[in-house]
Amino acid sequence: MGAELPARSVLVIGSGLIGASVGLALTQRGVTVWLDDPDEAALTVALDRGAGARVPAGASPDVVIVAVPPASTAHVVSAALRLYVNATVSDVASTKTQLQRDVEIGTEDSSRFVPGHPLAGREVSGPAAARADLFADRVWALTPGAQTDPGRTRQMTALVESLGALAVITTADAHDRAVALTSHTPQVVASLVAAGLVPLDDNDVRLSGQGLRDVTRLAASDPDLWTEILCSNAAPVAESLDGLIGRLADVRDGLLAGAGGTAAIHQALRAGVDGHRKVPGKHGAAPVPYSVVPVLVADRPGELGRLFADAGLTGVNLEDVRIEHAQGRPTGLVELEVGPESAAALVEGLRSAGWDVRV
Amino acid sequence: MGAELPARSVLVIGSGLIGASVGLALTQRGVTVWLDDPDEAALTVALDRGAGARVPAGASPDVVIVAVPPASTAHVVSAALRLYVNATVSDVASTKTQLQRDVEIGTEDSSRFVPGHPLAGREVSGPAAARADLFADRVWALTPGAQTDPGRTRQMTALVESLGALAVITTADAHDRAVALTSHTPQVVASLVAAGLVPLDDNDVRLSGQGLRDVTRLAASDPDLWTEILCSNAAPVAESLDGLIGRLADVRDGLLAGAGGTAAIHQALRAGVDGHRKVPGKHGAAPVPYSVVPVLVADRPGELGRLFADAGLTGVNLEDVRIEHAQGRPTGLVELEVGPESAAALVEGLRSAGWDVRV
Repeated sequence: MGAELPARSVLVIGSGLIGASVGLALTQRGVTVWLDDPDEAALTVALDRGAGARVPAGASPDVVIVAVPPASTAHVVSAALRLYVNATVSDVASTKTQLQRDVEIGTEDSSRFVPGHPLAGREVSGPAAARADLFADRVWALTPGAQTDPGRTRQMTALVESLGALAVITTADAHDRAVALTSHTPQVVASLVAAGLVPLDDNDVRLSGQGLRDVTRLAASDPDLWTEILCSNAAPVAESLDGLIGRLADVRDGLLAGAGGTAAIHQALRAGVDGHRKVPGKHGAAPVPYSVVPVLVADRPGELGRLFADAGLTGVNLEDVRIEHAQGRPTGLVELEVGPESAAALVEGLRSAGWDVRV
Repeated sequence: MGAELPARSVLVIGSGLIGASVGLALTQRGVTVWLDDPDEAALTVALDRGAGARVPAGASPDVVIVAVPPASTAHVVSAALRLYVNATVSDVASTKTQLQRDVEIGTEDSSRFVPGHPLAGREVSGPAAARADLFADRVWALTPGAQTDPGRTRQMTALVESLGALAVITTADAHDRAVALTSHTPQVVASLVAAGLVPLDDNDVRLSGQGLRDVTRLAASDPDLWTEILCSNAAPVAESLDGLIGRLADVRDGLLAGAGGTAAIHQALRAGVDGHRKVPGKHGAAPVPYSVVPVLVADRPGELGRLFADAGLTGVNLEDVRIEHAQGRPTGLVELEVGPESAAALVEGLRSAGWDVRV
């Protein structure tokens, strides 16, 4: 392996949330950042926030990052590859297959193109919402194609890791199939399960627990944004939904078949347990079976603070926390998740501090 | 309205988790509780725990609560109605329609039968896990039939409320349709979305966020138990799954239709937003749009305690807490949810205490 390609100067095209955040983060790390955007108002905000400088005439950036809306990405990437003949060019679009195909058609040399996708959205958008630490601890997928120069991929890997992101290298097809399953299908399912509640009487909908809240939480998302996202990954999402429809039909048919159908239902649920083991837990690792310590807490200011302060005094590291709100009551059940070896110490510590631990 | 029927003596048949918990709770409230169970070992544990006394010869309880496995419930309820000719009889089975039909066939007088369903499961079972406060803050559905005496329903309502539960009165059909939508369908969906991850490469499955964890959390549930539950409510669950399959097919077809299909996709997601508004939030109320205050917290003992102690000092009441674990990093993003009017005070208080608040 020869000397790595440097990234002393970076041109960011597009000064929305992602582009301006990249500019802020690279500037903080001493990189020369140039910003460009046809939207002069957005560009001015990003420049004012310190996300970079206007592109000087004859600039020759080491890296160009294209952070424009999905529909324009292929065109802008192709133009950048033609204009900056030595630069590595990357992007931030959330689906990759069609983009990569379009860029390979639109340019003669795609060896310098390293497609990317930072998984770092916020509920807000625009350069005013930009943050230098937007990518800290976030996965940033890179999907080099067959023609991509491995040195360019290493350069981009180093760059995104310098922003605090975790680089995950895969192919465009695998990326799009994965996000269809891990992101786009859960969004559709949450919306459609929630839609099924519309005809339900307000009294009867109270017959529900935490499970319904978990499954339908994503259903509050913006329909405009998600229609665009789903359409940009249409084939893999349609395939994933088709698989889900088949599995749902198996369970439905099993239910209608009476006693003869229970094996099919059991098998489907069993496969769900296997799949659940693949869901990334903390720190990207396989999910660890934490012990749950439930504590009843009154619903008033300071109670959670007292609880966590007392938990802190036990020296036990809390891995996760969930609050299950009681319906119609001024109390909540707080579930503290800890490593199995720590559960006994936490229970004893909290009980001796007077907490109503429910194990 | 005449004098209400008293419940000075209650016979609990079945000494598992629910039966023994009912016995403990009623005993604590000064009610005479008799316990019966053909399983002598379980009965002995429940009696030892103080959940009641053995049934004396010639006992004439005011109320009988049948807490046996679902498959035996109709038979035991019918027998209790015949044997205790003055008693109100209730049960705790999680589906109601078939049970009610069976009881009406199995007995001449079902006016004393008030079917019930406490939504109060635990991950554990058996009398050793019983707790007097198992029903505190939980919904307890009552589904009186057309023949049920309203005085008996009022008696049971008072009894379950004396245990701290929130009585919700509805019909058997409405109950079973509701739990098909709010509990059984979310379980099936969680399992089947998780099952779709099985073929996914471990590297690619990292391209996922909190949404996947929320949607698939229930998939870790016990397949044996859930096969039994789903089969006990087969027709309403099949109908609910059928509706979901139709909505999923609409989205799939919209994706495959290209530009002409976006309206159908948008409409489906829009319906999800409407349905999400019906999901019960805290205290059984419609979900309130809380403000989210994200804080970056190091992953070591005591940090959450410090955070919540500092939050408590601001006097702001935390409505909910979520911890989003960063993949591959020793930090987590803690999302504190508060009433919109309190967000500014919380942000300022935490910042002045040195916290990395990410708004």
